[in-house]
Amino acid sequence: MSDASDLTNRALGGDRRALARLLTLIENQGAGADEALARLYPQTGGAHVVGVTGAPGCGKSTLVNQIALETRRQGQTVGIVAVDPSSPFSGGALLGDRIRMRDLAGDEGIFIRSMASRGSLGGLARATGDVVKVLDAAGFDVVLVETVGAGQSEVDIAGSAHTTLVVQAPGMGDDIQAIKAGIMEIADIFVVNKADQPGADATVMLLQTMQRLGRDEPRTDRRHHGTRTLAAKTPPAESGWVTPIIQTVSTSGEGIPELVAAVRSHWEYLNCSGLLRAREEARVAREFELLLRERLLRDLLGRVAPGYLEQTVARVAAREVDPYSAVREFIRAGCQEVPA
Amino acid sequence: MSDASDLTNRALGGDRRALARLLTLIENQGAGADEALARLYPQTGGAHVVGVTGAPGCGKSTLVNQIALETRRQGQTVGIVAVDPSSPFSGGALLGDRIRMRDLAGDEGIFIRSMASRGSLGGLARATGDVVKVLDAAGFDVVLVETVGAGQSEVDIAGSAHTTLVVQAPGMGDDIQAIKAGIMEIADIFVVNKADQPGADATVMLLQTMQRLGRDEPRTDRRHHGTRTLAAKTPPAESGWVTPIIQTVSTSGEGIPELVAAVRSHWEYLNCSGLLRAREEARVAREFELLLRERLLRDLLGRVAPGYLEQTVARVAAREVDPYSAVREFIRAGCQEVPA
Repeated sequence: MSDASDLTNRALGGDRRALARLLTLIENQGAGADEALARLYPQTGGAHVVGVTGAPGCGKSTLVNQIALETRRQGQTVGIVAVDPSSPFSGGALLGDRIRMRDLAGDEGIFIRSMASRGSLGGLARATGDVVKVLDAAGFDVVLVETVGAGQSEVDIAGSAHTTLVVQAPGMGDDIQAIKAGIMEIADIFVVNKADQPGADATVMLLQTMQRLGRDEPRTDRRHHGTRTLAAKTPPAESGWVTPIIQTVSTSGEGIPELVAAVRSHWEYLNCSGLLRAREEARVAREFELLLRERLLRDLLGRVAPGYLEQTVARVAAREVDPYSAVREFIRAGCQEVPA
Repeated sequence: MSDASDLTNRALGGDRRALARLLTLIENQGAGADEALARLYPQTGGAHVVGVTGAPGCGKSTLVNQIALETRRQGQTVGIVAVDPSSPFSGGALLGDRIRMRDLAGDEGIFIRSMASRGSLGGLARATGDVVKVLDAAGFDVVLVETVGAGQSEVDIAGSAHTTLVVQAPGMGDDIQAIKAGIMEIADIFVVNKADQPGADATVMLLQTMQRLGRDEPRTDRRHHGTRTLAAKTPPAESGWVTPIIQTVSTSGEGIPELVAAVRSHWEYLNCSGLLRAREEARVAREFELLLRERLLRDLLGRVAPGYLEQTVARVAAREVDPYSAVREFIRAGCQEVPA
């Protein structure tokens, strides 16, 4: 039996150290990673995946810890995936983990994984999806995915959750900027954290106003974008759910039980309304597109002659050829080789 | 002569209305867009592309306006590309434009373009690159690219500029979060905006500390990431440039001449040190990878039978097949068809 498949068996059997090693293997796309993912895929689909996103400084990490603790109190197990644009000083993710461990240590029902940013566009989204699948297959009831908001890739990651929490804090940025952040429309639940600070009521009112405005506009559900082909498969408007606005103080735990109750209501709503299936298909469609892109590029680069890529790039940089023609030429060259 | 090629000629000849229409055509990847881009590509390479990034609320838009006005005062023409994670209420980009137009209206030497977020991962980065190329070819001396910071795609967009400004404001978020933002390492110039507000000195000191820390660490230049193959082509460490920290008050214009002078110094530094060429090649390499990904996917989807994609996605969603095997199968099916 290969290392990866042995690791997979042990991880699915509840061995935490094996789980951690399997996640590292998969994050790094090491030998046997694809096979391990293929093997555990049939075991997925049981977890409630909850995305938590918001701008830096809104208190997301503490909030996620509190949600985890409250969810545990109610008897469910929790996986946490903290997606972290990589720190220049590389210790960033580890530091976050250590602060977390202090609060959540010693509970076998909680597993925490921090992810640093992958190099390439889409790489982080793919890796996060893979890690979520592993935790899902390992049997965690709830998987919390924490992302730093505002960016497109973070919206993409958060948007692939079943339930998305958008966290705001009073007085952060000005109002137009908040509207611009583009994360409003993916919210299933709004959280106004630091609700004991001045300006919390104003933030709640702003969100209410935006909700009213939003209802008058045709809803474009960014959760379901992708290529034109895939985007056609958009589920019906989710008119049955009114996004609640919940105030919390994550440092004291105020509002956390209400928030966890809202998260659970949304899960019940998705299950009862049949929307879960639609969201799942949209999520799979998007993930499939990501995988296709990665695999196509990898295959092509594996087929062209060594140095050909560098030569082509140098010619484009020197303006000897435009990038659009160069791409066509490059693909043609790759296709003349025999596929592996 | 086709519409697109006529439009390109007029846009390059200085017709602003034609320029606006050409940009729309290219943003939407309309008929003739690729040909137009291929045609104007040899005219590119003259503009100094300056990225401006920072968290929502740090005053970026006003700062960009001020930089544009000061650059104009010094006799150069300016294109502005405002990259905006799309507003749920679609008027976002337009509103931003209108506020801008009030300040910058009536100056033929300034051209402003707001871009909303594209649907797919990487789509926004590609579209932004295309718009920058058009403005470059149209002869603007400086092209300012404004992005909302913190996300991976924003880092990618900002990182493709020749000179990147990272804007901070006093008291935004806590310190660890700021370090985590992952945009520090792409900064060629730090700007502490709203420098008249309390806490500005502390922000400057924090940046200085981080710079010192950063110097002790091996520099990983995220500007040059990509696939493993492309990343190998990393330019030498840019040890000759010490990232200045410049304080501004964008509402009053304080510090703006110093900032514009620093931007220009960096441009001179890049030109004299020969680093410009290295950055250009790294930028081209990354753009080439993006184009390859998009084109490969488009080609494949054009070759498979109608409905096959949807069937495959449904099978994956139903856990009948795992996504990794499904992707391999899908590519094999596409390759058996005759390429167009």
